[in-house]
Amino acid sequence: MRLIRSLLFAPANRADLVEKFPRYHADAFAIDLEDGTPESEKVSARRDLPRMVSTLRERGLSGQLFVRTNEPRSTHAEADLVAALQTPVDGIMVPKLSTVADLKRFTAALKENEARTGRAVGLIGLVETATGVINVEDMVCAGGAQFWGVAFGAEDFITDIGGRRTTEGLEVLYARSRVVLAARAAGLAAIDQVFVNIRDDDGFRRDAAAGRQLGFMGKMCVAPRQIDLANEAFSPSADEIDASRRLIQVYEAARVEGRGVVEFAGQMVDAPLLRRARAIVELAGRISSRTTGA
Amino acid sequence: MRLIRSLLFAPANRADLVEKFPRYHADAFAIDLEDGTPESEKVSARRDLPRMVSTLRERGLSGQLFVRTNEPRSTHAEADLVAALQTPVDGIMVPKLSTVADLKRFTAALKENEARTGRAVGLIGLVETATGVINVEDMVCAGGAQFWGVAFGAEDFITDIGGRRTTEGLEVLYARSRVVLAARAAGLAAIDQVFVNIRDDDGFRRDAAAGRQLGFMGKMCVAPRQIDLANEAFSPSADEIDASRRLIQVYEAARVEGRGVVEFAGQMVDAPLLRRARAIVELAGRISSRTTGA
Amino acid sequence: MRLIRSLLFAPANRADLVEKFPRYHADAFAIDLEDGTPESEKVSARRDLPRMVSTLRERGLSGQLFVRTNEPRSTHAEADLVAALQTPVDGIMVPKLSTVADLKRFTAALKENEARTGRAVGLIGLVETATGVINVEDMVCAGGAQFWGVAFGAEDFITDIGGRRTTEGLEVLYARSRVVLAARAAGLAAIDQVFVNIRDDDGFRRDAAAGRQLGFMGKMCVAPRQIDLANEAFSPSADEIDASRRLIQVYEAARVEGRGVVEFAGQMVDAPLLRRARAIVELAGRISSRTTGA
Repeated sequence: MRLIRSLLFAPANRADLVEKFPRYHADAFAIDLEDGTPESEKVSARRDLPRMVSTLRERGLSGQLFVRTNEPRSTHAEADLVAALQTPVDGIMVPKLSTVADLKRFTAALKENEARTGRAVGLIGLVETATGVINVEDMVCAGGAQFWGVAFGAEDFITDIGGRRTTEGLEVLYARSRVVLAARAAGLAAIDQVFVNIRDDDGFRRDAAAGRQLGFMGKMCVAPRQIDLANEAFSPSADEIDASRRLIQVYEAARVEGRGVVEFAGQMVDAPLLRRARAIVELAGRISSRTTGA
Repeated sequence: MRLIRSLLFAPANRADLVEKFPRYHADAFAIDLEDGTPESEKVSARRDLPRMVSTLRERGLSGQLFVRTNEPRSTHAEADLVAALQTPVDGIMVPKLSTVADLKRFTAALKENEARTGRAVGLIGLVETATGVINVEDMVCAGGAQFWGVAFGAEDFITDIGGRRTTEGLEVLYARSRVVLAARAAGLAAIDQVFVNIRDDDGFRRDAAAGRQLGFMGKMCVAPRQIDLANEAFSPSADEIDASRRLIQVYEAARVEGRGVVEFAGQMVDAPLLRRARAIVELAGRISSRTTGA
Repeated sequence: MRLIRSLLFAPANRADLVEKFPRYHADAFAIDLEDGTPESEKVSARRDLPRMVSTLRERGLSGQLFVRTNEPRSTHAEADLVAALQTPVDGIMVPKLSTVADLKRFTAALKENEARTGRAVGLIGLVETATGVINVEDMVCAGGAQFWGVAFGAEDFITDIGGRRTTEGLEVLYARSRVVLAARAAGLAAIDQVFVNIRDDDGFRRDAAAGRQLGFMGKMCVAPRQIDLANEAFSPSADEIDASRRLIQVYEAARVEGRGVVEFAGQMVDAPLLRRARAIVELAGRISSRTTGA
């Protein structure tokens, strides 16, 4: 599974912002043809896509690069997909993904493209409508190898059902939990909601921590300052790595003595806590090799 | 979709309480043949229904009028439905609605009645059993034009699964969220749980606010004093309307300049927040025309 | 439905711990061949099962006795089941139960065993994987008479989806709620997650209270000191029983006067609150007759 702790958006009609991507250490980036780009600018932004992507590749953009198309049933979606596939992007993001049929139109095109060009381009679906949440289990089963993961869009979701957002977020807990669970059951990546209060770093940290607790691997970012916060929130901390290593050690020592349960730091530890500790150490290793370019 | 911010119940065997309905400004009212009326009084209360409804209509009851029948598999349900359809009510409420088959018996009768009399009588289903929650997605798809909406009954639900109610309400968050999500995905109205502590206005406000955040459009009321609280909780506040209007203005101005994302009041605003602001202004308009009798 | 407020685990390779079971007042006990027993000890522990069970029966173990087998697709599962069925246990617990097919292999064997020996041995399934949660509604419908109940395994679940546990537990609220709801809709017992911080009694109490609010009937215990805490948390308190009795009395008196709704202790009380009060009194009676050996 790809490592996407942070995924920064910039509007496709703002080449000035898109071309700043190489400055940042996000794990992934998305050029946004959907909500970030006004209707009047969508055609010209799409036309400018090849040039922008080339510039980013020339400048050695380190993270994964995505194009967010317009929503499946819009008049733009098909042209967005075609345009994105003519550039060396890693994947596309499809907003307001709501039905298996919509998903399959996209994954079929990606599969056909891969068969023809030999280049694997993946899809991350934004689940952010009431219908999308209801269909999420079916979608994660139907997507095939091209379907890399899902992202939960809390703002669109709550708008769709007519609710209100709070900082605590209980109003989206059900949908947010259901999306990550469906994704993980299918072995797909799951990326968490944006946090729109861009000057509230503590709020971002709390929201990111909650997402990580739920099983998300990373978070969408709407401002560059959120990238480092996301990378940190979705990386094991030094303390966590240390505690995990000690837990593994203690558990292995106990196992040699024929015990499968051991008390460690006040907790009764058996297989699930051991596996969690190992996953933390393994993730820390992946992050470390990515950061050091290994 | 009908506007139901508040829905007041009165027992069908208490004509004295039912006949007070015209005094109150609830958006909807329900004459309750189910739990509010003891078994020994059900037959006589049902017999009295035409007279009560006539009295309410004569006195110019302004809100929508419903009859809550007994539960689908009770011996009373059929007679309750027949009796209700012989009066000029707007709709029926069906308690403990749990299966598509039960729902269809009712909606088929309503459809047949509509074809015969030309009068559209709708159904609001109370989802308040474990089985009802599990079947809610299927039910909202199967109900047809006669199925107007669902209401979530937290007290019956928690009794059914053997849990306990708390003021915080985490024990019903899953079911409450699932019901509103299913309803909104199908374009149906969703009405929130009652609040039984009838002297605790602050508690009511918190519970109502949580319901609105989740996407409910209104709340069932078990005492007249809860009506104004519900109407207020499910109406956009003056501050909310004002902030929404300014957000729309700022966003439209930015769009003219070719921007699809704009910072407003510390938030990164794009399409979903714009749509939410528009929905608030539109709802405020509907409430205002209702209140002024326009 | 069986009364299981507390269910204590001990590793199958630790006869010294298993043989202490008769000292404790847990409603149920489980000899754990899975995570509690290291791989290297599993075969010998299984071989020792008949002797351990005999010893427990001879010493007059009062609670129900279960054997936790290894997970359905492990190489041990079949042999564990066969070994357990050759002893006078009440039931088996199957960890990481995730699919209807896995469940049916076990229940078919139990059914066949019952037909042959005339002895009913039940199954409690641990739902503790993402896939298990997604399939829980299907599983509770498919299990037949041998399927007695489910237990929710929060630690394994959160490990499986890659999340993190917190004391507040919002990260498992969705899965925990979904599992209990599915179980209760099918009339099955539902047993709540373990609490691994074995020295934190207040934390245990809070976690148990939350589980009871959600509809669970009891809790798995990983240390003997948790048994009394669980028994207390899942028994109605004296105050609760007293308030329930008074509510029933007041409601019955009102009903005689033709009222189906009554205000009691600041709450508007009708049928669901009455039924809940009756369930509390009935549960208190069952617990009391169990405790007094009646």
